[in-house]
Amino acid sequence: MSSRNPYDADLAKNPANYVPLSPLGFLERAASVHPDRVGVIHGDRRITWAESYRRCRRLASALARHGVGPGDTVAVMAPNIPAAFEATFGVPMVGAVLCALNIRLDAEAIAFMLEHGEAKVLLCDREFSPVIAKALAGLARRPLVIDIDDGEAQGGGPIGTMEYEDFLALGDPDYVWRWPEDEWEAIALNYTSGTTGNPKGVVYHHRGAYLNAIGNAVTCGIAGHPVYLWTLPMFHCNGWCFPWTITALAGTHVCLRRVEGRAMFAAIAEHGVTHMCGAPIVMGLLINTPEADRRPLPHPVNFLTAAAPPPAAVIERLERQGFRITHVYGLTEVYGPVTVCAWHEEWDALPIEERARLKARQGVRYLTEEAVMVADPLSLEPVPKDGATLGEVFFRGNVVMKGYLKNPAATAEAFAGGWFHTGDLGVWHPDGYLELRDRSKDIIISGGENISTIEVEGVLYQHPAVAEAAVVARPDEKWGETPCAFIGLKDGANATAEEIMAFARTRLAHYKCPRTVVFTPLPKTSTGKVQKYVLREMARRLGA
Amino acid sequence: MSSRNPYDADLAKNPANYVPLSPLGFLERAASVHPDRVGVIHGDRRITWAESYRRCRRLASALARHGVGPGDTVAVMAPNIPAAFEATFGVPMVGAVLCALNIRLDAEAIAFMLEHGEAKVLLCDREFSPVIAKALAGLARRPLVIDIDDGEAQGGGPIGTMEYEDFLALGDPDYVWRWPEDEWEAIALNYTSGTTGNPKGVVYHHRGAYLNAIGNAVTCGIAGHPVYLWTLPMFHCNGWCFPWTITALAGTHVCLRRVEGRAMFAAIAEHGVTHMCGAPIVMGLLINTPEADRRPLPHPVNFLTAAAPPPAAVIERLERQGFRITHVYGLTEVYGPVTVCAWHEEWDALPIEERARLKARQGVRYLTEEAVMVADPLSLEPVPKDGATLGEVFFRGNVVMKGYLKNPAATAEAFAGGWFHTGDLGVWHPDGYLELRDRSKDIIISGGENISTIEVEGVLYQHPAVAEAAVVARPDEKWGETPCAFIGLKDGANATAEEIMAFARTRLAHYKCPRTVVFTPLPKTSTGKVQKYVLREMARRLGA
Repeated sequence: MSSRNPYDADLAKNPANYVPLSPLGFLERAASVHPDRVGVIHGDRRITWAESYRRCRRLASALARHGVGPGDTVAVMAPNIPAAFEATFGVPMVGAVLCALNIRLDAEAIAFMLEHGEAKVLLCDREFSPVIAKALAGLARRPLVIDIDDGEAQGGGPIGTMEYEDFLALGDPDYVWRWPEDEWEAIALNYTSGTTGNPKGVVYHHRGAYLNAIGNAVTCGIAGHPVYLWTLPMFHCNGWCFPWTITALAGTHVCLRRVEGRAMFAAIAEHGVTHMCGAPIVMGLLINTPEADRRPLPHPVNFLTAAAPPPAAVIERLERQGFRITHVYGLTEVYGPVTVCAWHEEWDALPIEERARLKARQGVRYLTEEAVMVADPLSLEPVPKDGATLGEVFFRGNVVMKGYLKNPAATAEAFAGGWFHTGDLGVWHPDGYLELRDRSKDIIISGGENISTIEVEGVLYQHPAVAEAAVVARPDEKWGETPCAFIGLKDGANATAEEIMAFARTRLAHYKCPRTVVFTPLPKTSTGKVQKYVLREMARRLGA
Repeated sequence: MSSRNPYDADLAKNPANYVPLSPLGFLERAASVHPDRVGVIHGDRRITWAESYRRCRRLASALARHGVGPGDTVAVMAPNIPAAFEATFGVPMVGAVLCALNIRLDAEAIAFMLEHGEAKVLLCDREFSPVIAKALAGLARRPLVIDIDDGEAQGGGPIGTMEYEDFLALGDPDYVWRWPEDEWEAIALNYTSGTTGNPKGVVYHHRGAYLNAIGNAVTCGIAGHPVYLWTLPMFHCNGWCFPWTITALAGTHVCLRRVEGRAMFAAIAEHGVTHMCGAPIVMGLLINTPEADRRPLPHPVNFLTAAAPPPAAVIERLERQGFRITHVYGLTEVYGPVTVCAWHEEWDALPIEERARLKARQGVRYLTEEAVMVADPLSLEPVPKDGATLGEVFFRGNVVMKGYLKNPAATAEAFAGGWFHTGDLGVWHPDGYLELRDRSKDIIISGGENISTIEVEGVLYQHPAVAEAAVVARPDEKWGETPCAFIGLKDGANATAEEIMAFARTRLAHYKCPRTVVFTPLPKTSTGKVQKYVLREMARRLGA
């Protein structure tokens, strides 16, 4: 550094040239530039951007009148309906932090999150009032509960102080909302699924939400005014930041209370959906929708998928139907996806199996995430880009959480060495694309050899009778652990454990082949991920 | 604010979750994800992204070996050739600041900029060696001069220590370059044209360059891998940040040493150009290219234009030829364009005159600029959105300069009241779109009434014989000032001053009509702007 730097003199930040980054301004812009465009669709409802902005300001204003302010938590228990969307803006507009709860959780988990997150207000969709009532019963401090009486809700009833629309009516549609004083301020609190122990509260900041919202658009090539179908839960990493992405582009949010084949095809046809996101389970629903419930696609529909690599057969069937699949990867701690399997035009000419193999890779960093590496978990030394050496996936950049709420030990562990430790294991290909092999805790160590359960599962999926497969470690007296396969068979298909094991031996090193095969439908999380901890427990009970 | 905010506890920034924003990472990503894609085209040369990254690292490394480091200035005098592009990355990669010089300036102005900016190194295209040699002659401290011997250069010769390619050869292609320690660090120094007094040195920071680079893409809907034709000078607000935008998208930069009709059509046809930017003068060149020099467009070409509202006839002719015109507006102080005349699909059905009227407006803020307003220059009170009340245009946001180098008084004046003062006058339409009426210094005050020269010019342009028109104030003993029109006639067309004045009187309030009409080709700056200060001087000499 020069002893005297003229570029540092009299050139400080001031209110004219420095504003904290925040996605909140996206809504103001959509409303002022495209006031009459439809911003939100839900059933027969059409909410323009001007009206959406007024509703969000009403929400912020009503929250402020009830004493909610900076650093307070507002929880939401709702499917993908307008209220859930409005909370992504209305809550941070008073400086509060949005805690979107997974609607498939039980009362105990919800109670923990409300208590740990210190929720001051809870917006609760009627359908989920039974589980919420149970969760509230055990709380020392009960939040203000607002009922959302969505027209499409089934069952449940009011348990709160007032209904959401009445609450909005208390608010000022011209409310002068609060821009964050610092872009490092928290905007959202998202609890991890917590397969062991208590869930951890991942804290997002305004800067990261702004950058990943834009990162989705720039990295995945989303331009114009996208029409976005809400098949990914908004409570899942704040819908991968898409409430902010689609608003930034003044697109249209098409709400979807229930993710069902018929409803998806209807929404695509009626509203001209251009983009949607979801776990493989959503792709499966699309593929398996009966002919009578299908509608022709008005144009190609872009589908972003994560959580598990899309198998070749699924890609092929969906692409033939007019969907374009993009494979992304991320975690709650990084605001949703931060890598993408960026496509090369020359790959289009390859056979489908080859394309699927390339597309199964988790790929490269988002433009807005500064670094990703596959490295030794202890030394943080990057592994060679040989497509073979296993390492842990690490991220560093602006789309990484602030940390875990009230959990400095876990935060320090996650950030040890100046990188975020994902706990996911993978390899680095010669072209710089990463490919996951396993979660650290999923890896099987048999006779001292590491076995990637993803590799074994990939082989099992090739068996013609196998619909789904998951492999976990089974304790073994001699080998320490051996692979145990759980398999769901296709409708009408048959196979024996011996056949499956023999099949695997023709394609895998012997030590990697399952020693145990159990036929059963796989247990899954609300976001479509196989619950390996359930399977591990089942395998443990099988004995060593 | 709550007395205790749990979201502030143990959740500080650390190297894993906070990285200074910088466009420099865009190049690393393009090179690692798309190493074999062509990043830069110049004549017969094709430079892949992998190679481009190596060349930029060589440049950074060679600069470092010559003692260039953080806070040093590196100047470039070159047209749109690869070396000019490489400097936008290679120079800041050592923490230095890029000062791209306007190649049409004279030695005196250049000498001022080199001296004031304290340039330590100067990369000089051979063709401009005469003016540079003259500029250097008067300097107390001569920078290290590197000659760029571009194959398409005409005339000139070596005046420096070595040639650019030899300089690169000294550098390490694997050089470990410097990420800025703070996103507020300077990345570029751009001198304003300075129509009165000395030019001012506008300082850009990494944060703003990153954000406007992405802002161009998101706001103007540039997705995929754009093929960008360099018709806008890279020395003009760093090419509106497009060196960084196109690299972020791993697109292709098509260099263009000379902006000529035949060369533009050839480049569009041969390289499949998708985007280009430029002042109206470039649109004029496209329109006036003789049939023999034209080539069919392979697909619609997006043209971003600024500096003057595109007239209806120009829009119509270009759109008929396959160009899509987007009108943007900005200034050197805001990194190029930060407003856009965002288009509404329903306007497509309007008659061309109406579309041109709408498109002539400067529009709304970029997504990445947080606020724009039209307000009273003194009170900063926003004017009503009535399309009539004149006010000054103000910006506030992250895409506003750090300030003027070594000029705290001008910096303070520009930022007075917490807004950046553009000096441009305009109105705010009911739909929130702003429309410029004049520069503050261009306004004519006649008998106490403000006259917008843009309004008068708009009427003059409607006269069938008028090719170009500019109106300035002429001193007047009775009225203070009166409008004086300078008019360039179309080839073969004729008109008298009396005819022009009579024509104006049928369309304008009497006091707004030109009292003087002078027929002459209009003097223009290197970026195609009419040099009104020259005309003002001519009008002044006509006497009061």
